[in-house]
Amino acid sequence: MSDRIYLDWNATAPLRPQARATMLHALDAVGNPSSVHAEGRAARAMIEDAREKVAALVGAAARDVVFTSGGTEANALALTPMIGTDHAVRERLLVSAIEHPSVLAGGRFPAQAIERLPIARSGCIDLDALERRLATLRGSALVSLMLANNETGIIQPVAEAARLVHEAGALLHADTVQAAGKIPIEINELGADFLTLSGHKIGAPKGVGALIRRPGAPPIGDALVKGGGQERGARAGTENMPGIAGFGAAAAAAREGLSGDAARMAALRDRLEACLRAASPEIVIFGADQKRLPNTTLCALPGIKAETAIIAFDLEGFALSSGAACSSGKVQPSHVLAAMGVPPPLARAALRISLGPPTTESEIDCFVRAWIKVSGVLLKESRGIAA
Amino acid sequence: MSDRIYLDWNATAPLRPQARATMLHALDAVGNPSSVHAEGRAARAMIEDAREKVAALVGAAARDVVFTSGGTEANALALTPMIGTDHAVRERLLVSAIEHPSVLAGGRFPAQAIERLPIARSGCIDLDALERRLATLRGSALVSLMLANNETGIIQPVAEAARLVHEAGALLHADTVQAAGKIPIEINELGADFLTLSGHKIGAPKGVGALIRRPGAPPIGDALVKGGGQERGARAGTENMPGIAGFGAAAAAAREGLSGDAARMAALRDRLEACLRAASPEIVIFGADQKRLPNTTLCALPGIKAETAIIAFDLEGFALSSGAACSSGKVQPSHVLAAMGVPPPLARAALRISLGPPTTESEIDCFVRAWIKVSGVLLKESRGIAA
Repeated sequence: MSDRIYLDWNATAPLRPQARATMLHALDAVGNPSSVHAEGRAARAMIEDAREKVAALVGAAARDVVFTSGGTEANALALTPMIGTDHAVRERLLVSAIEHPSVLAGGRFPAQAIERLPIARSGCIDLDALERRLATLRGSALVSLMLANNETGIIQPVAEAARLVHEAGALLHADTVQAAGKIPIEINELGADFLTLSGHKIGAPKGVGALIRRPGAPPIGDALVKGGGQERGARAGTENMPGIAGFGAAAAAAREGLSGDAARMAALRDRLEACLRAASPEIVIFGADQKRLPNTTLCALPGIKAETAIIAFDLEGFALSSGAACSSGKVQPSHVLAAMGVPPPLARAALRISLGPPTTESEIDCFVRAWIKVSGVLLKESRGIAA
Repeated sequence: MSDRIYLDWNATAPLRPQARATMLHALDAVGNPSSVHAEGRAARAMIEDAREKVAALVGAAARDVVFTSGGTEANALALTPMIGTDHAVRERLLVSAIEHPSVLAGGRFPAQAIERLPIARSGCIDLDALERRLATLRGSALVSLMLANNETGIIQPVAEAARLVHEAGALLHADTVQAAGKIPIEINELGADFLTLSGHKIGAPKGVGALIRRPGAPPIGDALVKGGGQERGARAGTENMPGIAGFGAAAAAAREGLSGDAARMAALRDRLEACLRAASPEIVIFGADQKRLPNTTLCALPGIKAETAIIAFDLEGFALSSGAACSSGKVQPSHVLAAMGVPPPLARAALRISLGPPTTESEIDCFVRAWIKVSGVLLKESRGIAA
């Protein structure tokens, strides 16, 4: 697929060369990290090296990193009434309406304890609504908010939310899966008590993630996957050693490249959006006036269906998406755009173009030419059907 | 570590060359398996190909395989009061006293609902005790039994247990992690409703496993990791695509090599045990008169401590273990030997030597020479201390 152009980096990022090289090394290492012999100690050392690197990506301490099988499991581990304690129980889970399905599912909170917070039309979490809800809350709560939305790329006011949450005596979990590697994250500045990372969104392999604790926050406790004593009791099971090693290498590379990558992607994204606006003046770019990730464009051209457009672009050699790609391949209406009050017909037209660090100007220009062709054909067809 | 001899295959098996080759291919594949574009479909195809191969290893149907992050997670997924249903609740979980810590932890059963079944001195599950307990049970139960013990290698009467369990209207989960790839497993003949596999025990990478349903058994239901609709709703989160691909390749290779590997390992294991008995007539080989895995020897030489012996053998270039290696590197007394009624001083001497398909006669002979040297020194030291 060397002649293909991949513009679906928010769904998954190709493996970084540094992660690939480290994984090859790890794949050839024999030994269970829990074994005491030389082979076991070598496997253990690779995991602890990766832990340092993943911690460094978000300014955390290595000892506060719990490796999981991915972002979804890290979210599920965090979302428990027993978070940070082994006695008192959090009675409510407040989540924003635009969270990832693994957060909306609420982890181990019973369904009746999970509440969705409203979203402003801007696509941002409504801080006033959060503050009001926290003020009327009886008992203690866990709040879970994402740092950047995976569909729109809109960056959420998590640090401000953290202050409100902590003033109310609640705890804050931040899903930073989509933000990591695209904008700087410092767990102390962010103020979230726990944050989730996913390896494959930053160029590590699929199948690895982490839940990370802020220094001073309560312990994670309450394992979801129980058994052996791995991950200091927070997550049982033989560690995914090659995946974790690749995660460490990807985290180090992401951290090193961050400011340059972000600036380059933002310039290309701006070029893309200017060209799309010029080609299709009626285009809607969601969150265009908001602080967004540097790599994400979610746009809709009224009259064309995203489902059809994705297939048409795929045939032309471009991989893009209609929003989230985290379910079972079904194209469903976006809960994110619904929460923002976007009318369903426009939401059904939404296409997500997400760039990566190696995306080039020539790839963007190719895509714009394909856009002009595909959107022209699809609009003509849709008008023909309407007529 | 090319001059090392690895005799700890029950802790983890080195990556099979077939798994390595398939993983390299999968690592270079771009695309989220849930994406609809060509890259996504290619990733999906690799997962479904692996699903067929993993199913074939145990005679199951591909659609009944749920991929997880490993054996521990698969056990945790199976052990829920809601297994096989979305309404009636299993009130009790019966496990044998020699199960893996991830089964003893009981998954989502409350602690007071988990019961340990006794073990005969032979090291086998006591079927009479199981039958008696099932007869007095009120309400429905889930029973979880391992097919082969990871420490002793003793093969358990799971098919017989399945008949008793089903006559009592209960369900049976079998942890076949340590048996897979060493003895043939046919899920229909075994009769267990669900079984657990771990990739890294059969030469796949660490970080992947599966829970597999027997045709005719109730659905798995009740996801442990919730969110997106992956794995038909039974396990959310972007799939560990390279790990799963490697698992498929390892399963196919394990299946193909099974009868030859088992015969070769059994002959080497018999040679090893004969040499150890000749060198150390006072040696105890646990389960020597029982049906065992072809690759596992658990033995104890009264007077030497396993902890010290493992370090001594490590220095001589041999990786072996004192039993399970699934915890946090701590050497703890074996709950398996305790359940068999082995006196603690003898249990503390237990060493596990576990072979793999490529283990050679010359490696065994090297180990026997090291055994004579190390056991001689350690026995002299222990007598010196005692004197």
